[in-house]
Amino acid sequence: LDDEAMKLAQERLDSLTKPQGSLGRLEEVAIRIAGITGKYIPDVPRKLSILMAADHGVVEEGVSAFPQNVTVEMVENFVNGGAAMNVLSRHVRSDLWVVDIGVKGDIPDKRGIIDKKIARGTSNMTKGQAMDRDEAIKAIEVGISMVEQAKAMGYGLIGTGEMGIGNTTASAAVVCAFSGISPQDVVGRGTGIDDEGLKRKVRAIEKALEVNRPDPADPVDVLSKVGGLEIAGLAGVFLGCAAMRIPVLIDGFISGAAALVAYKLKPLAGEYMIASHLSMERGHRVELDMMGLKPLLNLDMRLGEGTGAALAMGIVDVSIKIIREMATFEEAGVSQKE
Amino acid sequence: LDDEAMKLAQERLDSLTKPQGSLGRLEEVAIRIAGITGKYIPDVPRKLSILMAADHGVVEEGVSAFPQNVTVEMVENFVNGGAAMNVLSRHVRSDLWVVDIGVKGDIPDKRGIIDKKIARGTSNMTKGQAMDRDEAIKAIEVGISMVEQAKAMGYGLIGTGEMGIGNTTASAAVVCAFSGISPQDVVGRGTGIDDEGLKRKVRAIEKALEVNRPDPADPVDVLSKVGGLEIAGLAGVFLGCAAMRIPVLIDGFISGAAALVAYKLKPLAGEYMIASHLSMERGHRVELDMMGLKPLLNLDMRLGEGTGAALAMGIVDVSIKIIREMATFEEAGVSQKE
Repeated sequence: LDDEAMKLAQERLDSLTKPQGSLGRLEEVAIRIAGITGKYIPDVPRKLSILMAADHGVVEEGVSAFPQNVTVEMVENFVNGGAAMNVLSRHVRSDLWVVDIGVKGDIPDKRGIIDKKIARGTSNMTKGQAMDRDEAIKAIEVGISMVEQAKAMGYGLIGTGEMGIGNTTASAAVVCAFSGISPQDVVGRGTGIDDEGLKRKVRAIEKALEVNRPDPADPVDVLSKVGGLEIAGLAGVFLGCAAMRIPVLIDGFISGAAALVAYKLKPLAGEYMIASHLSMERGHRVELDMMGLKPLLNLDMRLGEGTGAALAMGIVDVSIKIIREMATFEEAGVSQKE
Repeated sequence: LDDEAMKLAQERLDSLTKPQGSLGRLEEVAIRIAGITGKYIPDVPRKLSILMAADHGVVEEGVSAFPQNVTVEMVENFVNGGAAMNVLSRHVRSDLWVVDIGVKGDIPDKRGIIDKKIARGTSNMTKGQAMDRDEAIKAIEVGISMVEQAKAMGYGLIGTGEMGIGNTTASAAVVCAFSGISPQDVVGRGTGIDDEGLKRKVRAIEKALEVNRPDPADPVDVLSKVGGLEIAGLAGVFLGCAAMRIPVLIDGFISGAAALVAYKLKPLAGEYMIASHLSMERGHRVELDMMGLKPLLNLDMRLGEGTGAALAMGIVDVSIKIIREMATFEEAGVSQKE
């Protein structure tokens, strides 16, 4: 991060017509954006949400409340503009890229999606590794190249989102692998599974960890053994944003697992991340704590798709507008503190 | 509230392409707006922030970090568009009415403000009552009439804001009078007073309560003895919104004191209020707890002006857009939960 820009941003914020620090976390975000972009008065960014969709072999174990074909169906819903993520993206004026990085089925109408399919979903991680190491690396590279493209197109703020039936199971396995915390302390209800399903979910993760023995010191090992293609792709997005100095918003639990992979690969990448919200999915807090990040919003959301990140884009915009548009004490002729 | 509209709103939310309840508090807000407006698919509202400014005789006691003339100076800043509240109002596309309901000094350029001055600030409440009962009632009526006007102009969502050096002291006194909690457990640093000032602030409130003995069973008595003109005016705004079925956002601590007065006068008025955020000013939580309200945002803000309410307008807008714009499972051809 650019310390000089952060210092100047702090000085500018302190000169504006408000008690010092009284805008709390908005000021913190403005300073962070200054540090990332190197501009102490940052531009209001052109915004992009990257939503990666993929399927998970582990759904065979009965870990999700919804059938697997919902992944394809929701991709179509995104393309047609009817999902929550579309509503939120329009609201904050973010563009939305929907990337098929590993959906099992065929998407009937490919207009409107970005086809980067690496495999037709992962394999069932309770029976062996979810994907090859090469596939995981390829998926990370897809994420990085998306950010390169976004940068070339002038985007200055990126949100992360995902769709994939079964992906809270993979994310929980990733968190367990890195943290050593037992599955039952990380697993949540995802899209709303019942008590029996929750037990199956815990058992599936236990089995996946036992069968694969992912090495926490090797994030790509964790990713390929118990992760997912969208998780790998988004890890690439986080790495790309750090490399290209673009602030990037973590959404919920799955996006957080991807952020954690990126952070484990490159701890510095954490400096470029902003935690948008705290998901109801309990493992999300574990992820954020591991990276030392504090979420901006807490609205009891647990939808994913990038919805929390999109909402937080409005907060980032506001924080930048504060530093850009407010008058200083001098400009406004307002008396200072006595 | 309209129970039928709330029931239909809940059913509609449950039919949309997302796990039920997964948008958390956004869904709660949408249902509340349906109940207030009687429309289960509410319109995206035209938004208005009403900012009331007034001065406080108690500043003679050295309770504020800023000099009294900052009230006038900030009113000018609002008119010129340079304050945080202007930035936030523009961001969420809310109009902003700046009302002089009791500023001590003369505002040099009255274009751009609404002149409803009832008195040149309150009297020093440590030496007698802050204002006459008649003045308090008149200020409440100003608030109500502002809402009538707003309703006639088609506004469908109102935010509350204030400016007035010394008004966290008056607000704390109001909260103490209603709750019986001792001043030192309610008082905060306002615009940033030091330790010595904080002691003066506590003593001033203790003295004001002792000298005036406000009757907690008579909210207008509390208001006139230890309140403020902007607090009374905003209490009228809350009452007017309840009477005219317009959802109204509580901002921070001072706006919360006004909400509490309205709630004590008419407990049903609480149903029309939405708590926008939790202020860093510690008494704010006391107020919200007394009304059983849970804030939407917690961004460590403590600026007032209506900034928290303005930020939350974006959340309200989004919650309404969710219920208006998302596709149902049937429309999108997405499979339901198994």
